Amino acid sequence: MASGLNTSVPTRISGGKNTTAEKLLVAASELMIERASIEVSLSDIAQKSGVNAALVKYHFGNKDGLLLALLARDAATEMSQLEYLINQPISPTAKLKLHIGGIIRAYHQFPYMNRLIHYLLHESSTEAADEVSKFFVAPLLEFQRRLLAEGIKAGEFRKVDPVMFYTSLVGACDHLFFGRHAMSRATGVGPVTDEVCRQYIKHMEALICGGMLSEKKAANGE
Amino acid sequence: MASGLNTSVPTRISGGKNTTAEKLLVAASELMIERASIEVSLSDIAQKSGVNAALVKYHFGNKDGLLLALLARDAATEMSQLEYLINQPISPTAKLKLHIGGIIRAYHQFPYMNRLIHYLLHESSTEAADEVSKFFVAPLLEFQRRLLAEGIKAGEFRKVDPVMFYTSLVGACDHLFFGRHAMSRATGVGPVTDEVCRQYIKHMEALICGGMLSEKKAANGE
Repeated sequence: MASGLNTSVPTRISGGKNTTAEKLLVAASELMIERASIEVSLSDIAQKSGVNAALVKYHFGNKDGLLLALLARDAATEMSQLEYLINQPISPTAKLKLHIGGIIRAYHQFPYMNRLIHYLLHESSTEAADEVSKFFVAPLLEFQRRLLAEGIKAGEFRKVDPVMFYTSLVGACDHLFFGRHAMSRATGVGPVTDEVCRQYIKHMEALICGGMLSEKKAANGE
Repeated sequence: MASGLNTSVPTRISGGKNTTAEKLLVAASELMIERASIEVSLSDIAQKSGVNAALVKYHFGNKDGLLLALLARDAATEMSQLEYLINQPISPTAKLKLHIGGIIRAYHQFPYMNRLIHYLLHESSTEAADEVSKFFVAPLLEFQRRLLAEGIKAGEFRKVDPVMFYTSLVGACDHLFFGRHAMSRATGVGPVTDEVCRQYIKHMEALICGGMLSEKKAANGE
């Protein structure tokens, strides 16, 4: 992961060894979770971390540099887990279920992750956008492509287009965190607790694997 | 629909009868589609519509008023179709499939719709947010609640939590339009054409109804 960031993130932070840089990332992450928004200023981050504002510029160049480093930090763990998962000696269906749980837990742990991805892809520099595609979207899509192929070959999955699959799975997982406020206003639905997360993982596993027709209907091929 | 907006949208536009107000909404809608963003200024809207900027203020009060009126315009058609759909003499499964197609086509026609909903729910005034919940989120969720109950009663659907179902379906549909740019950068995936839309509707119908396990696996109850 670290070497993939060399072009736009200063190498002095890419290894995650610099304590000041790490402090700034922790502060940025905490502020985004507190505010449920990625709209945090460099001076807010400096203040919360107790680090001199000038050092933010020194370590990350600008705000986009910091956001990119934050996403890279959070994504690195997730991506290495995908590589681990694909090589496990378990069935493709079991891998798929673990993958669904992994995505939802990652969003729960880093609820700002998807906003950050979209901000960096759409509203920041081209270099930042290319980095995000390279270290986040492409590996996730590639993992799902391999998993789908494996499952189809094993006779467990029907043929599914990987890009459409990616869109529906990532979209559905993301929306638990993005769309929840809208529903809570409309219907008194509460916040996303650990328990809600667990329930949603079960819901998504069942939906993605078996859909929502009753067993009798499904067996009739409807 | 119109009477539900009286508290925050001037009544002179709520009936959709005022030509100047309609022109402004058309211009706002077109600009948002062109830019793939809801970041359009009142002066841009005035300029594109050929309407004097002062009239924007006269008709909508402020930008949030205009955005709310735009969303109300687009949502009104969709919501009346839900009422029509639930009363059709067809099976719950058939209704569900038509509903999935309806959501995806609505996003395709108004790609800024979901951004607008989230902006109005999270970043604008409390009154605007309450209006959106009232005329958009709540009726959609209520429709799905009724459809799910009908399908379970008919023995066609297994038991599914309506809030979780709403989250996964709306999230998956939304992501085709929100997440597409990310994928196109990563993988050369193209824009959302009419054909992509049709394919995604088929994908989502199959996924939501039957999941992605092969028929043999599904029949074994796995």
